[in-house]
Amino acid sequence: MEKFKVTPWEVEGKVDYDKLVKEFGLKLINEGLKKRIVKHTKDLHFMLRRNIFFAHRDLDKVLNDYEKGKGFFLYTGRGPSGKMHLGHIIPFYFTKWLQQKFKVNVYIEITDDEKFLVKNQTWEEIKTYTMENILEIAAVGFDIKRTFIFRDSEYIANIYPLVLKVARKINFSLVKAVFGFKNSTNIGLIFYPAIQIIPTFFEKKRCLIPAAIDQDPYWRIQRDLAESFGYYKTAAIHSKFLMPLKGPTGKMSSSDPTSAIFLDDSEKDVERKIMKYAYSGGQPTIELHRKLGGNPEVDVSFQWLKYFFEPSDKKLKEIEEDYRSGKLLTGELKQILIEKIVKFLKEHSKRKEKAKDRIIEYMYEGKLARKMWEKQYE
Amino acid sequence: MEKFKVTPWEVEGKVDYDKLVKEFGLKLINEGLKKRIVKHTKDLHFMLRRNIFFAHRDLDKVLNDYEKGKGFFLYTGRGPSGKMHLGHIIPFYFTKWLQQKFKVNVYIEITDDEKFLVKNQTWEEIKTYTMENILEIAAVGFDIKRTFIFRDSEYIANIYPLVLKVARKINFSLVKAVFGFKNSTNIGLIFYPAIQIIPTFFEKKRCLIPAAIDQDPYWRIQRDLAESFGYYKTAAIHSKFLMPLKGPTGKMSSSDPTSAIFLDDSEKDVERKIMKYAYSGGQPTIELHRKLGGNPEVDVSFQWLKYFFEPSDKKLKEIEEDYRSGKLLTGELKQILIEKIVKFLKEHSKRKEKAKDRIIEYMYEGKLARKMWEKQYE
Repeated sequence: MEKFKVTPWEVEGKVDYDKLVKEFGLKLINEGLKKRIVKHTKDLHFMLRRNIFFAHRDLDKVLNDYEKGKGFFLYTGRGPSGKMHLGHIIPFYFTKWLQQKFKVNVYIEITDDEKFLVKNQTWEEIKTYTMENILEIAAVGFDIKRTFIFRDSEYIANIYPLVLKVARKINFSLVKAVFGFKNSTNIGLIFYPAIQIIPTFFEKKRCLIPAAIDQDPYWRIQRDLAESFGYYKTAAIHSKFLMPLKGPTGKMSSSDPTSAIFLDDSEKDVERKIMKYAYSGGQPTIELHRKLGGNPEVDVSFQWLKYFFEPSDKKLKEIEEDYRSGKLLTGELKQILIEKIVKFLKEHSKRKEKAKDRIIEYMYEGKLARKMWEKQYE
Repeated sequence: MEKFKVTPWEVEGKVDYDKLVKEFGLKLINEGLKKRIVKHTKDLHFMLRRNIFFAHRDLDKVLNDYEKGKGFFLYTGRGPSGKMHLGHIIPFYFTKWLQQKFKVNVYIEITDDEKFLVKNQTWEEIKTYTMENILEIAAVGFDIKRTFIFRDSEYIANIYPLVLKVARKINFSLVKAVFGFKNSTNIGLIFYPAIQIIPTFFEKKRCLIPAAIDQDPYWRIQRDLAESFGYYKTAAIHSKFLMPLKGPTGKMSSSDPTSAIFLDDSEKDVERKIMKYAYSGGQPTIELHRKLGGNPEVDVSFQWLKYFFEPSDKKLKEIEEDYRSGKLLTGELKQILIEKIVKFLKEHSKRKEKAKDRIIEYMYEGKLARKMWEKQYE
C-alpha cells in the first residue's frame, strides 16, 4: 500500500480518502443527506452530486437547525502565502453557492499570521499576497450584506480575550498529538490553533466549514472544547483535493508553478501548462489509444472537468465514455479543458475588476463587516 | 545550603542574591556606576544607595547613550491578577524617579493576557483588577506627556506583526529551557514571551527595565534576538524583593493576605498586620532584648524601613543601632514602620483620587499615548 500523509500543511502521496474518513472519524455525505439538502436548495451542486464534497461532520445537525429556523453560518479561509491557483478558489465558489441557497453569513479568515509563522517569507510578502488574495476572493461574488473578510493580524484585538480562553485549555501535548508539532516548532505556530478556532464562535449558531479535508485536525480540538465555552461543536463539509496538474498524488502547490494553474495565468500559460504538464490517462500512441482507450480515473484533464469545469453531468458522461472507448484523444480532451479554464479565468478576471470597489465593503463597511468591527469576543 | 527557586512566577525560599547574579549573568551596580548616575541626577535614590536596586545589565551603555544625547526609554509592567500591595508599587515610585531625573518616556505594560493564562481566574476578574491596578499606578504620578500605560489585550493589534516575527524565532525547546515550560503548559503561556519582548522595541533606543530580579529570564531571550531585528539588547536594573511580612523567605504574595500590606488596607489593617505578623528580629523577652539586642537583618520592620519607608540614611542608621543595641524594642520599631506606612498610604490614596481623571491621558490621550495608538509595529 502506498504511503500518504495529510496534515494542514502537507499533502503527500496518493490520498486514500476512505482511510482518511475512517482515521479522522468523519461521515460520508450519503444519498439521504443529499436529498435533505436538495429539499432546500432545489438543485444540488455538482460538487455534491459527484462526491467532490464527500464527507462531513454534523451536517445533519446543521440541517436540523436550519429547518427549525435557528439557522447556521459558514466559515472558511485562505492562507495568503502566494498567488492563488484554481485549487484554492474552487471551494470559495462552492461556499458562495451554499450562501446563496441558504442565505447565511460567511466569515472568511485570511490567516496572514499562520502563513507568516509557517513559511519563510517576509511580512511584506505576506501583506502583498493578502491584498491580492482578498481581491480574488471578492471576485467570487459573495453577498456583501452577509460576508465578512478579515485578516487575523487586523482583527486580533476583537477576539484576543476569547483566544486566550481557548489557549488556556490547550496544552503542548495536545497540539503535538494533533498537529505533529515538535520541540523545534516555533511558539507562534504552537499558539495558532487557538486563533483558528475562534471564528467558529462568531455566532451562537452552528458553524459549517467547507474546506479541503486536510484542515480537519483544527476542528477536532474545536469540537472537544466548544461546548464548555457555551458554543456549538463545529460542523464541516470536506472536499477532496483538486488533482495536481502533474498527476494523481498530493495537492497543487503554489511553490511549484508547473503543478498548478494560477488565477492570473494567461490564455497561453493555460494552454502550455495543460498541454505540457497535465498528466494523461491516455495510451502512448494514437493507435494504442484508439484500440485500448484512456483511463479517466488518473487523467488530470478529465478529473478537472469532473471536479469543477464541466458542470453538466450529461456532457461529462459523454466525455468519459468517449475517452474510455478511445474515441476521444488526450489532445482533444486537453483542448476541452483548456477552453473551459480560459473561459472561467476570463470571467473571474472581469469579476475581479468589478470587485475592487467591494473589498472595503467586505472588510469594513458592509452590513456584516460593520457589525463585526463593533464586536468584542470575550 | 538552603534551597531557593526564582522564576517569573515563583519565588521560594531565602533568595541568595549573589548566586542569582552569577547564575543570571548580571553585574552588580558598583560605586563607579553610582557616581556616573549621580552626575546626571544630582542626588542618588536611596534604593540605589542601599543596594535595593543592586544589579544590572548594560546600565553603563544606557548612560553612554544618554551622555551622547541619544537617550533611552523605560519599560515596566504589572500583572493584574489581584490587588496591589506595597511590594508591587514601590518599583513604580523608583521608575518615576528615573523618569523625572532623565526626562525619558515610560511604557507600562499591563499583562492581562499573561495573568489570565497563568492563573485560574475569569477574564472578568482580570479586567476588574486591571482597571484598579492602573489607577494605583497612575497615582504614582508619572509624567503624562511621557508615559503610556497599555493593556496587552487592547494594544495587541498594534504590535501583532512584530510579535509574530519574534515568535517565529523562538521554539518550544528555548522557552522550555528558559521558563521551565512543560508539555502540560498551555499554548497561550508558551506564546507569551513573544509578546512581553515587544515593548523593548517601542523605540530605536536602548530600553531600560527596572524590575524585580525574577523577571530577568524574559530579557535573556530578548537580548539574544534584539540585534537581528535591528533593535538594542535591552538593559535592566534589578531590585531585590521586599521581604514578606512573615519573614525573610520568598516574596510577598497577593494570594496570602497576611503576607502583604495592600494599597487599600486601612490604618487599622496596617497596625494589626504589622503588630501581629511582621517577623521580628528581636529577643523573646524585653529583658533579653535589652541585654542581647535585636537582629535588623531578619527583622521585617527594619528591612521595610530600609527598603522604602525611611529615606533618610541618618535616621535609618540610628534605628539600626538602637535596635541592635537593645535600646529600641520590637514594638517600638513596629510603631515607627506603622506610622510611615500609614502616612504613605494616605498620600498615595489622595493621589489616587486625583489620578482618576488622568487614566484616560496615560492610556489614550496623552502626548505619548496618542503617538503610540497611531503606530503599527511590524
